[in-house]
Amino acid sequence: MDKPKKSALIQKDGVSISEITNKNSIENLKNKRKSEMDPNELVDSILNKDITALSRAITLIESKNPKHLKAANTILKGCLPHANKSVRIGITGIPGVGKSSFIETFGNHLTKLGKRVAVLAIDPSSSVSRGSILGDKTRMEDLVKNDNAYIRPSASGDSLGGVARKTRETITLCEAAGFNIIIIETVGVGQSETTVHSMVDFFLLLKLAGAGDELQGIKRGIIEMADLIAINKADGDNLKAAKLAKTEFTRALHLYPKKSSNWNPKVTVCSATENTGIDKIWSMVLDYVEITTKNAYFIKKRNEQNKYWLLQTIETQLKFYFFNQPKIKKELKNQLQLIENNKTTPFAAADYLLNL
Amino acid sequence: MDKPKKSALIQKDGVSISEITNKNSIENLKNKRKSEMDPNELVDSILNKDITALSRAITLIESKNPKHLKAANTILKGCLPHANKSVRIGITGIPGVGKSSFIETFGNHLTKLGKRVAVLAIDPSSSVSRGSILGDKTRMEDLVKNDNAYIRPSASGDSLGGVARKTRETITLCEAAGFNIIIIETVGVGQSETTVHSMVDFFLLLKLAGAGDELQGIKRGIIEMADLIAINKADGDNLKAAKLAKTEFTRALHLYPKKSSNWNPKVTVCSATENTGIDKIWSMVLDYVEITTKNAYFIKKRNEQNKYWLLQTIETQLKFYFFNQPKIKKELKNQLQLIENNKTTPFAAADYLLNL
Repeated sequence: MDKPKKSALIQKDGVSISEITNKNSIENLKNKRKSEMDPNELVDSILNKDITALSRAITLIESKNPKHLKAANTILKGCLPHANKSVRIGITGIPGVGKSSFIETFGNHLTKLGKRVAVLAIDPSSSVSRGSILGDKTRMEDLVKNDNAYIRPSASGDSLGGVARKTRETITLCEAAGFNIIIIETVGVGQSETTVHSMVDFFLLLKLAGAGDELQGIKRGIIEMADLIAINKADGDNLKAAKLAKTEFTRALHLYPKKSSNWNPKVTVCSATENTGIDKIWSMVLDYVEITTKNAYFIKKRNEQNKYWLLQTIETQLKFYFFNQPKIKKELKNQLQLIENNKTTPFAAADYLLNL
Repeated sequence: MDKPKKSALIQKDGVSISEITNKNSIENLKNKRKSEMDPNELVDSILNKDITALSRAITLIESKNPKHLKAANTILKGCLPHANKSVRIGITGIPGVGKSSFIETFGNHLTKLGKRVAVLAIDPSSSVSRGSILGDKTRMEDLVKNDNAYIRPSASGDSLGGVARKTRETITLCEAAGFNIIIIETVGVGQSETTVHSMVDFFLLLKLAGAGDELQGIKRGIIEMADLIAINKADGDNLKAAKLAKTEFTRALHLYPKKSSNWNPKVTVCSATENTGIDKIWSMVLDYVEITTKNAYFIKKRNEQNKYWLLQTIETQLKFYFFNQPKIKKELKNQLQLIENNKTTPFAAADYLLNL
């Protein structure tokens, strides 16, 4: 009975728990102990590039617990003067286009150049399903172990607006922690591209050769937003088709009006798995930054984005306050009924509700 | 000296001032005399299909003069119980696709079937330039003389929202005046399609063969909205290309998800100038009405549209009230400056302004 059981399953020797997991466990314990940590101390740690402090601060910002709000605001305020010194790159493309492997290769390329890279995500599905496109960090095996990279799964929230706010504030913290390249990933469907576009400097659209726009589920508006279209998986048998797609997209882009950035959107091919064309993409980003810094578009765009977020937040809140008043809730129902019965018009009903 | 001068210009005999102009002049005089007319009397006249009364009422609704507001509301209230008995058709397509000649042929076809047709327009440019796509009635020479048709140039306004409200209320008046087909025309660019789509039952997109989507300036979203795509100018040498385009669009439409109306969007060819395919388009509209009336989508959609307009109006007004407060105007400027100097975030600034 004391004899060790023989198992049919082969157990390999020497597979220890990965370093990452160990590190994380230790950090988690530390975090628990430091749970009453002063927000100002957290700011100092963030400025000293302490990743644990950064993660804890982001958690506070993402928290739905109202008692974390004050600490979150203190941290943000402390980080703000040290933020903004980065290039923010939005990356989109349909599932299957190879976003994760692209970010893995691109991110490692950048850290080799001495950059520090933070990867965030906006996931429209996360507000509903609590899923997260970056939840599975294992898809970026190398980058996750890279000391100069920081990967944060997408925030969850009740609305895309809420998720966006949290992501936007997370950018500030990452920048204060010395990350000078911020990558924001999203899935190429729905409203989330507009959201990402409104918080990045450079917008990169990943595409596949061969599949039509309809099949790729990409809306025309997204092509208009792109500063660079990269045809990914341009390797092996795919290379020829990718080059053809490049020609087609280049021609298509000519039909769009010139951008106010004075930057002509580019089209290129790359292969994340074979690490080809990645350096070229980075040099295009650098070109963009140079041109738009010279013509002051870079800073102008950031200011416009800030204004957009200010107005957007106000709008959302105004609506929220208005429609959550019990009197309005009740009368809205009545008015809708009156409209249905042809007793009033939508406009008269709106006037009535606003006058309440 | 009394001898009549001989002119080098040939003056044709028998060209009298057109009947329309005469009629209009008389009506205009009448209108001036009746300028203090009671709104309830106007309603009675509208219900008696008095076109002059209808025009005067629409002018009151379009008026920016606040003292016309009460009369306009009284008229609307009087007309509402008699409205809604119509098929509302939105028609869009880029300039040059032949919208005017299509509406001319289509409208005359409908009046021959005993229908009464009102043609309105939403023109995104009118809010800026005060121009009007239907301003030039001469482009619909026959329809304008047709007693069972009523053509109203697009309303002008400070915003698309304002123009939309006026057009929407004009629909109510036209329906009360016994027009059972309401056609709303718009140019296939920008936001105006969404606006038109949100006030019609059936959305018809006119296209040309040969030109790509990019060249036609048509956004993907518009194709998604269409219940019917008609390739116009399918005549002469163009016929073959039009039929080919029909096949292509039919295939493309299959890629879109099924509509909640249970209606499969159709593609057809037509020639407004040769009056071919026009009867088929009308029978497709009838099919649509039959199917969606049976499955109750028709009424459901109208209710949803009403709700949309109610909420839309409230949102616009809330923002207007908020941002026009002198205190907010001043503080908004300050906060934007603070954001630019990294002293606050857009979100903190929004919270601050909302708390004022």
